[in-house]
Amino acid sequence: MSFDSLFAQRARDVRPPMYGPNQPARSHLISLTYGFADPALFPSTDLAAATAEVLERDAAEALNYGPAFAGLQTFIVERLRTQGINASDENILLSYGSGQILGLLPQVFIDPGDTVIIEGPTFMGAVRHFADSGARLVTVPIDADGLQVDALEDVLETLRRDAVQPKFIYTIPTFQNPTGTTLPLERRHKLLQLAAAHNVIVVEDDAYGDLRFEGESVPSLAALDTNGLVIRIGTFSKILAPGVRTGWAYAHPNIIARLAAFKTEGANGPFLTRMVARFCAKGRLDVHIEALNGLYRRKRDVMLAAIARDLPEVTAERPNGGFFVWCRLPHGVSANALLEQAEAAGASFLPGGRCFANGEGDDTIRLAFSFQPVEQIEVAIARIGKALRSL
Amino acid sequence: MSFDSLFAQRARDVRPPMYGPNQPARSHLISLTYGFADPALFPSTDLAAATAEVLERDAAEALNYGPAFAGLQTFIVERLRTQGINASDENILLSYGSGQILGLLPQVFIDPGDTVIIEGPTFMGAVRHFADSGARLVTVPIDADGLQVDALEDVLETLRRDAVQPKFIYTIPTFQNPTGTTLPLERRHKLLQLAAAHNVIVVEDDAYGDLRFEGESVPSLAALDTNGLVIRIGTFSKILAPGVRTGWAYAHPNIIARLAAFKTEGANGPFLTRMVARFCAKGRLDVHIEALNGLYRRKRDVMLAAIARDLPEVTAERPNGGFFVWCRLPHGVSANALLEQAEAAGASFLPGGRCFANGEGDDTIRLAFSFQPVEQIEVAIARIGKALRSL
Repeated sequence: MSFDSLFAQRARDVRPPMYGPNQPARSHLISLTYGFADPALFPSTDLAAATAEVLERDAAEALNYGPAFAGLQTFIVERLRTQGINASDENILLSYGSGQILGLLPQVFIDPGDTVIIEGPTFMGAVRHFADSGARLVTVPIDADGLQVDALEDVLETLRRDAVQPKFIYTIPTFQNPTGTTLPLERRHKLLQLAAAHNVIVVEDDAYGDLRFEGESVPSLAALDTNGLVIRIGTFSKILAPGVRTGWAYAHPNIIARLAAFKTEGANGPFLTRMVARFCAKGRLDVHIEALNGLYRRKRDVMLAAIARDLPEVTAERPNGGFFVWCRLPHGVSANALLEQAEAAGASFLPGGRCFANGEGDDTIRLAFSFQPVEQIEVAIARIGKALRSL
Repeated sequence: MSFDSLFAQRARDVRPPMYGPNQPARSHLISLTYGFADPALFPSTDLAAATAEVLERDAAEALNYGPAFAGLQTFIVERLRTQGINASDENILLSYGSGQILGLLPQVFIDPGDTVIIEGPTFMGAVRHFADSGARLVTVPIDADGLQVDALEDVLETLRRDAVQPKFIYTIPTFQNPTGTTLPLERRHKLLQLAAAHNVIVVEDDAYGDLRFEGESVPSLAALDTNGLVIRIGTFSKILAPGVRTGWAYAHPNIIARLAAFKTEGANGPFLTRMVARFCAKGRLDVHIEALNGLYRRKRDVMLAAIARDLPEVTAERPNGGFFVWCRLPHGVSANALLEQAEAAGASFLPGGRCFANGEGDDTIRLAFSFQPVEQIEVAIARIGKALRSL
């Protein structure tokens, strides 16, 4: 008895999910690997209160079948409007985390062999979805100011000469993952001009934009766009809690309709969306974000100081926000070799190569300051320094 | 500026979702149309308490990134084992409602043109997913004892003669939607023998199985199956609350791995799964189901009595559980014509034709007794009776 012959073509040789149901238990290492949120700042009490209020007042609607709570959509629309984005309800799709939008994008845009432009390095959790759908990936490099738009122009012109129409450019313009860089205004304008000239969608992943510790904010690509070409992806994971699995897309209604059509389980449930909306109301979300930025700024500073003291061999970028410090290793040191030693010493990080789709980056590492308490950050950096000197 | 040319082939002519984000507000009619749960029985207080406990004790894990709560998986495994199903962890995938599993099934099994066998009538919310993926639908009729397995045998043999390998049979063997019928044990055995002989998967949708008001329970197809050919789909929507959007699939691990791989947003979040698990613990779910069955039985009885009194022209099936009464209209009466009159009189129902993929059923209607209070059920049936006599 075999059912292997019954699987659809696309399901024959399927990879296990990246963060599947059988994720192994976390190890005893001090991990600077993942961009987890700091549990010390989860607003548990306020969330419990919000839940109790929802269940006391709105249980009949919150617990039955129904669409996502319209009030949460309104909250997001108004928030986007304060950021200069001309949003209305039909521009928004609520999703189970922004990761769901990243998984839906290739269903809407990618036929096998289609071209997608990505940053190098970038968030490979997104890129993996594009690659799984059969996209051909073209990498444009990042420098200290983010995406190199001149290099992007060259890529677009080469593609045009080859009669290739790229489907979209995936970019994280603010507090980029993994580099922490922020694309300056001029580059944003140039990126949008190029997108319009080449009729290509720009996917602006804004997971970290609210987590600014210093410096002036730069208008989002969605705010600057006049052609309806920007899809902006947001999430409550970094500013509230990843566990509530609530994200959203802002895009042209024609795109939103298609993303919704491929969201086969239907709208996000009415319960969680009400709970998140009630938590966010009355300015509570902004107060919470301020508290987060105070803590994450301190953790960034602790990490940078620890690197200067205990890991002076690396060149660290100083991010103005987000979750990560990106480092270049001394000449000749491999991130993977360093990781082996660091794990033996009791600390871990993300080897930079895992942030590139083109095999580059083994001389770089990503250090997350978001999750660990400050004392643990210091211990971990000291251990990585020891590991480096043992190589 | 146009991005229509950028959409993938599969996204060019996409239909809006059945229950999308822009669902219109419910009307003033007394609706017997949808299988909504009765809000009077939502365990709001217990759910609020469960949430408060989760956030007090487990916030660090419940609110961060992470897999679905293993304890909920264990709860489901143990529940299936008490039902005679040889389940373990690798047989289970938690999902956002059972509807998500129904949306994932065609991704795993259907290449365009593949054949799927369905019941007539059936739950078209499921069938729509199969049809959207390009499946060819073959309908096998239902009688008072559910799926006609002799007719299924004929269909399977005809397909074999035509060298067509059907991918799966979609069936709701217990308290079928819409007919309320339950497949007797002998038919279950025969169905599984046929499935084994023709190497075809059986998808057992068990949305209503726990809602038994009377009669002996019949072993599930998953319990009777010895060949690993049954995918069983369950949900908390009918026994707890649809708003928590929590369902699951039980299947062979090779199938579970593939369903998980196409669940692109990753595992169900750690928060909601903990909340549901904590509510269900210590026998609370079973106590709650008993309460539900007391109420739903009463509502079924009220509806059947109202039909006998105010709508004697129809032939109503008496279900032993579930949410629906299925009726045949008098000769020559069209369900769609009746609906128009009924809506004018202030009541609505589901015309039976919407439960068939093959155009049949305009002489049938589905009446949901689940959602409306008993007095409203009586008023609605009286209005439908008046509408019928006005035709």
